[in-house]
Amino acid sequence: VTESEAEAPAHQRELARIGAFSDAVMAVAITLLVLKIDVPQLGGHEVGELDERLLDLWPDVFAYGLSFAVIGRYWIVHHRFFAGLARWDGRLVALNLGFLAFLVLIPFASDLVGRYDNETSAVITYAVVLVGAGLMNWTVIRHAVRNDLVAPSQRAHIARFGQVTALALPAVFGLSIPIAFVSPHAAEAFWLLTIAAHPSWWGHTR
Amino acid sequence: VTESEAEAPAHQRELARIGAFSDAVMAVAITLLVLKIDVPQLGGHEVGELDERLLDLWPDVFAYGLSFAVIGRYWIVHHRFFAGLARWDGRLVALNLGFLAFLVLIPFASDLVGRYDNETSAVITYAVVLVGAGLMNWTVIRHAVRNDLVAPSQRAHIARFGQVTALALPAVFGLSIPIAFVSPHAAEAFWLLTIAAHPSWWGHTR
Amino acid sequence: VTESEAEAPAHQRELARIGAFSDAVMAVAITLLVLKIDVPQLGGHEVGELDERLLDLWPDVFAYGLSFAVIGRYWIVHHRFFAGLARWDGRLVALNLGFLAFLVLIPFASDLVGRYDNETSAVITYAVVLVGAGLMNWTVIRHAVRNDLVAPSQRAHIARFGQVTALALPAVFGLSIPIAFVSPHAAEAFWLLTIAAHPSWWGHTR
Amino acid sequence: VTESEAEAPAHQRELARIGAFSDAVMAVAITLLVLKIDVPQLGGHEVGELDERLLDLWPDVFAYGLSFAVIGRYWIVHHRFFAGLARWDGRLVALNLGFLAFLVLIPFASDLVGRYDNETSAVITYAVVLVGAGLMNWTVIRHAVRNDLVAPSQRAHIARFGQVTALALPAVFGLSIPIAFVSPHAAEAFWLLTIAAHPSWWGHTR
Repeated sequence: VTESEAEAPAHQRELARIGAFSDAVMAVAITLLVLKIDVPQLGGHEVGELDERLLDLWPDVFAYGLSFAVIGRYWIVHHRFFAGLARWDGRLVALNLGFLAFLVLIPFASDLVGRYDNETSAVITYAVVLVGAGLMNWTVIRHAVRNDLVAPSQRAHIARFGQVTALALPAVFGLSIPIAFVSPHAAEAFWLLTIAAHPSWWGHTR
Repeated sequence: VTESEAEAPAHQRELARIGAFSDAVMAVAITLLVLKIDVPQLGGHEVGELDERLLDLWPDVFAYGLSFAVIGRYWIVHHRFFAGLARWDGRLVALNLGFLAFLVLIPFASDLVGRYDNETSAVITYAVVLVGAGLMNWTVIRHAVRNDLVAPSQRAHIARFGQVTALALPAVFGLSIPIAFVSPHAAEAFWLLTIAAHPSWWGHTR
Repeated sequence: VTESEAEAPAHQRELARIGAFSDAVMAVAITLLVLKIDVPQLGGHEVGELDERLLDLWPDVFAYGLSFAVIGRYWIVHHRFFAGLARWDGRLVALNLGFLAFLVLIPFASDLVGRYDNETSAVITYAVVLVGAGLMNWTVIRHAVRNDLVAPSQRAHIARFGQVTALALPAVFGLSIPIAFVSPHAAEAFWLLTIAAHPSWWGHTR
Repeated sequence: VTESEAEAPAHQRELARIGAFSDAVMAVAITLLVLKIDVPQLGGHEVGELDERLLDLWPDVFAYGLSFAVIGRYWIVHHRFFAGLARWDGRLVALNLGFLAFLVLIPFASDLVGRYDNETSAVITYAVVLVGAGLMNWTVIRHAVRNDLVAPSQRAHIARFGQVTALALPAVFGLSIPIAFVSPHAAEAFWLLTIAAHPSWWGHTR
């Protein structure tokens, strides 16, 4: 598919709309996380226990903060990547929807790990969703680089993205799976350290 | 209604807003799908069953993936169609809202078919919602073509849309209804094959 | 407050953002309606009743369709009104938030009237929310007309909006309140006829 | 990091996208508030109690109105602040996500205080979330002023923002915490008066 100069504004407009749709999906997903912190349902005679029950919510709040940070960082990566694109094709749109399909699962996985924070299967589910999102993100970027969708001036910047970032993250979440068989809490701590400690893995050094 | 050249920018601005509202509705609907995958609610002594209970969620996950793909593809079709419009009228807005009203029902239908994957009435409900969305989509496109709302350069492209695409899809979901009386699972497999196998029916060949 | 010509682009940019925020709130509210159609929760031995239970959902589906039409029409009115504005002030923003606060209550009122379709208090609640939304809409428009926020070329058009439209609708919903004391279903039918029969009351004749 | 003139449009485009994402998150959060007003679930023989049960919802409606006003005001402050920015950096994005993470908790806190309006721990939770949002808002503004991200013409305006506004509000919510130990209802009344009485504290005098 050769691309004439004349089509450039149409490509920019279309890329802007794909980016805006992705942004909207991520904005809704990050906000739905709050629905996953359950307000304690206490009968009239149990109301006195509210203090303790609120303190029992800490795994939910941990899962909320973790998932908010993960979606927030993917939003940063995603829109910087889109800012570097000059053209789009149908496959980019399809792969991007695939990425979003994993990202939208995060509120479910977050609810699960908030409720069953000490269960191996809950922790593995969370890790699998994040591995899926990470691999799809990497696939989207690789497709764009290989099919010449990236603006010439951004090529070096985006390519770096597609290597270090997008595979380091799914690798970390993948590695947490064997850890979860030993200790679910250790796997969760491992996620947290990763997210906190390696901002460059997410591809935003600035 | 004659249309002076001078009104063109106002039409473009208005079409952009109608498109943006539609995009936002579709972005919220596609993200709400995640709320329809129920996190198992287990008491303290049942927590050991979490593994099995998560595996029991596969019909929910199937319904999620299917519905995500359906809404995602309608989003692609919808915004390519809107990109080809030069003008709008009140009827276009009303018909577009009618299309969105069916599309927004998908998370409900998806929840139903995820929970009662082997029930004929659940499968029929899903098919009816999709037939409705497909027919409304076809009606919107036909209205635009007949009332000269399409940009001259896009006429051939959009008209093709209005024929093959928009009727093939509701026809397939309509055909699944008699199949559901014999076997709900066969009807669901039929949907999946359709979605996977005929991308051109959705009108995006690129 | 005198307004120099130089500030016009800043006003347009700000008005666009206020309009976009309002659009987003209305898009989310219209989509949340689907969460108010409850999927029947049946135990293993009750699954055979699913057909009947789905048919029992018709009041929910009625409430969904009605509320979708109401929010959809308010979206149309709202964004045509905003398209006619040339300037904004702090009071416009505050009144607009007041309008949105009533509009966002519609999914709650819709749930109520879908579940208790034959209860006077449910029907009154719905009517009160709609009266509130209608009065706030009227107040927003009146404020804009009186404080010279409307573009000169749009003044006649917007002023018509602020008279016929915005008071006819809350009047109709207000009138349904005494009817609800006699028959809740009659009040609901009254809403439906109104919405279907008088598109000009909503201010979009085109 | 020196900034050439040539980069200004890229900065504006990026700031617009960060603002649009923040707007979308706030629009979703303000709309999700409606899901926190619980429709009474009454069995067939209890339907006659619906009137009373609806009147019992007043704390939910109070919490809804309060939280709608709080998020609405933060939206106003936030987008005026963003309108005054000329440049962005990675820290601004991260701090802004931190602000949004507290803001998104408001529907949870609102649900809690609507359900347990006379419980000290519920009232404290609400106040803590608002203190967090206020401090993050103040931190974001201070970062922008100190790191020269503000447009020269807006510097005086934004700086005023960062002083009076952003610390008065978290101070008020912080002060309500000791009050809540004496009387939760007094703390709630204190919030209401604050919100109603001091619009200039929110930074929008116009």
